[in-house]
Amino acid sequence: MALHLAWRSDAEVVIVDSLVTRRLVASVGADSLVKIGTPSARISAYEKASGRSNITFVEADARDPAAVDAVIARHLPKSVVHLAQQRSAPFSMVDQEHALYTQLNNVATNLNVVFSMTRHVPGAHLLKMGTMGEYGTPNVEIPEGPVTVSRNGRKDQLMFPRTGQSWYHLSKIFDTHNILLANKIHGLTSTDVMQGVVYGSMTDEVVDDSLATRFDFDSIWGTVINKYVVQAVLLDKLLIYGKGRQSRGYLSLYDSVQCLSLLLANPPAAGEYRLVNQIDETFDTLQLARRVARIAEEFGMRPGFERVANPRVEKEEHFYKVEHRVLPSLGFRRTKDMDDVLREIFRTVIANKARASKMSSLVAPSVPWGGRKAITSKGFRLPRDLTGWSPWEEVVEYAREPPAGSD
Amino acid sequence: MALHLAWRSDAEVVIVDSLVTRRLVASVGADSLVKIGTPSARISAYEKASGRSNITFVEADARDPAAVDAVIARHLPKSVVHLAQQRSAPFSMVDQEHALYTQLNNVATNLNVVFSMTRHVPGAHLLKMGTMGEYGTPNVEIPEGPVTVSRNGRKDQLMFPRTGQSWYHLSKIFDTHNILLANKIHGLTSTDVMQGVVYGSMTDEVVDDSLATRFDFDSIWGTVINKYVVQAVLLDKLLIYGKGRQSRGYLSLYDSVQCLSLLLANPPAAGEYRLVNQIDETFDTLQLARRVARIAEEFGMRPGFERVANPRVEKEEHFYKVEHRVLPSLGFRRTKDMDDVLREIFRTVIANKARASKMSSLVAPSVPWGGRKAITSKGFRLPRDLTGWSPWEEVVEYAREPPAGSD
Repeated sequence: MALHLAWRSDAEVVIVDSLVTRRLVASVGADSLVKIGTPSARISAYEKASGRSNITFVEADARDPAAVDAVIARHLPKSVVHLAQQRSAPFSMVDQEHALYTQLNNVATNLNVVFSMTRHVPGAHLLKMGTMGEYGTPNVEIPEGPVTVSRNGRKDQLMFPRTGQSWYHLSKIFDTHNILLANKIHGLTSTDVMQGVVYGSMTDEVVDDSLATRFDFDSIWGTVINKYVVQAVLLDKLLIYGKGRQSRGYLSLYDSVQCLSLLLANPPAAGEYRLVNQIDETFDTLQLARRVARIAEEFGMRPGFERVANPRVEKEEHFYKVEHRVLPSLGFRRTKDMDDVLREIFRTVIANKARASKMSSLVAPSVPWGGRKAITSKGFRLPRDLTGWSPWEEVVEYAREPPAGSD
Repeated sequence: MALHLAWRSDAEVVIVDSLVTRRLVASVGADSLVKIGTPSARISAYEKASGRSNITFVEADARDPAAVDAVIARHLPKSVVHLAQQRSAPFSMVDQEHALYTQLNNVATNLNVVFSMTRHVPGAHLLKMGTMGEYGTPNVEIPEGPVTVSRNGRKDQLMFPRTGQSWYHLSKIFDTHNILLANKIHGLTSTDVMQGVVYGSMTDEVVDDSLATRFDFDSIWGTVINKYVVQAVLLDKLLIYGKGRQSRGYLSLYDSVQCLSLLLANPPAAGEYRLVNQIDETFDTLQLARRVARIAEEFGMRPGFERVANPRVEKEEHFYKVEHRVLPSLGFRRTKDMDDVLREIFRTVIANKARASKMSSLVAPSVPWGGRKAITSKGFRLPRDLTGWSPWEEVVEYAREPPAGSD
């Protein structure tokens, strides 16, 4: 995202990251399929490739209110793209520790961003990454905005009811509520992106390996299409959760970056809350498996299908339809056909097969969401320094200082 | 609640409390109108008055996963009444620190209770205190359960959409989502109580002052009726927020205790999630002011009405109707007429007038919910030891032990 914005526009991009995702992935024994450089190495590679020097990296933890406040106050951004959260549903389901970590981390980071924006850049645009998983799988089309609720002859326009299926998905629902309240009481200008499942790891800006972004494929951090391709290459079979009839909305990383860029370039009106359903196409997991298997043949493989018990607690056969008009109205068009992206993924996985082989045990699901196993330890532990953190210890000093322009 | 349960039934009541409310109230310079004894003094008074000894007090912080786990594992309760949260909307609106404290405290305490119940007493009944404030003020009747959402000829039964108006109200929405998910994935049996605004501080069991419970009347911790009576006695006027047309559901403390007792005695079926709207009557704040003024005359006072700017960000004129059938179906009947409870409140306030006079400056609203003042320090600070707390530091040790009956 940063590469795309910096390369394609005159934006000065400030990346703020604690790099905790690397450590959380390592805490369950996993790693990115492709090696990821340090931020400074990647920025150097970007500067060399592009001839530009408009990316700054700040290592900071968004859980820390003072750290967020310092960076917002210093750079006074016009837009804040908030991706700084624990982003894995299975990780949140590991045990109580991981549930607490996910929800408290995500709520705190989001509140910190919202408060600092209100304090220092009240007119700026917050582009917040949510998830289509906030909606669950209702038996009606998921609207892109509020819904009319009728009752006894009266009606009102209300938020479409959310039904999250993991502690993680709920954390994103919490963020949506907090952003709506900040919009109401402080006039926060925001775009709340309900993103579908992303696949692939390439964008046009990843011109060589030194600029590569993460490719997660283990059962906790990987998304379904990336996992299928690794399973095809490593196991010669695809692991289908249950009946394989679970439908979701998908888009490639190319298109996720395109969508976010469009939303940044076309912010809502000042003081407006805009909700966007960011998906391209809808598939069930068996349709995806067939598609992956077809492309696998081009690479000389014929993976079988193996049904495994679904570790998730979810409807396995259900209606699924998503309204998504905002992005097309802003000019969104699919960048690449899914089959072409699948071919790229196959090439990436085959090139990194030796590295993937060492992690092949991580492909099978390891975190059941329900039943008594869901509350027992899986042997996965959070890094200890992450659990010693106090969410509001740092808020005190600047909270005493009146903000600029205080009335 | 504990007095009522212990005195009126054969229940063994274990109270778990960190006593933090006393300190949070003190942190904004306020105090209960009536003096509150220590837990041990109050339990001694109960034992003397009742001739029974079925209340145990455990001082523990529900934010601490290990502390919650230890008490649940030791006492193996049949029912858990979960009231252990930060309960003031204005307190959550003081500043960023208080918003973070409220949401992280409330989410963590609730998750800890849910996880420990799932681990040790999976068949027990969770009676969780939520708030009618989760619903906001929609333009349709608020249902007691899900709502039918229709769209393009299809329909589904979904949670009635929530629209909280403060960081506190949102924290209770978060709990509702977490309890629904625990019900779905672990079969947690739960009653989620959306309670209206409570008034009064007496129950039948408060037979003398040594058993008194809190009476908060300051602008941050008090509820509207209690505040009005104190304003009548201290200021000879009632402070009306804005137009005074804000409607809410109310019930007396007598009836709140009656309702919770009924819900405990009549739990939902095993594995069921039951939602209850716990109110008795609906009034707007001007109707309440008139009622308080009428009773004030019986005590020789004729308070005037003074309109003050509404510190809250809320609709001031709106429809308000609440379905509430579950409690009447279980036998709920109003215990005392509101006028009689108002007379009791007047007697309490007049008896404690000298003490109230010292805190009269706390009656006027001090926490605006919107605008730039909402993000500046009010000079209120959380006790420092509360902010040094880490939400999951304590979760580790027991998380490694497999629970009994693990499969």
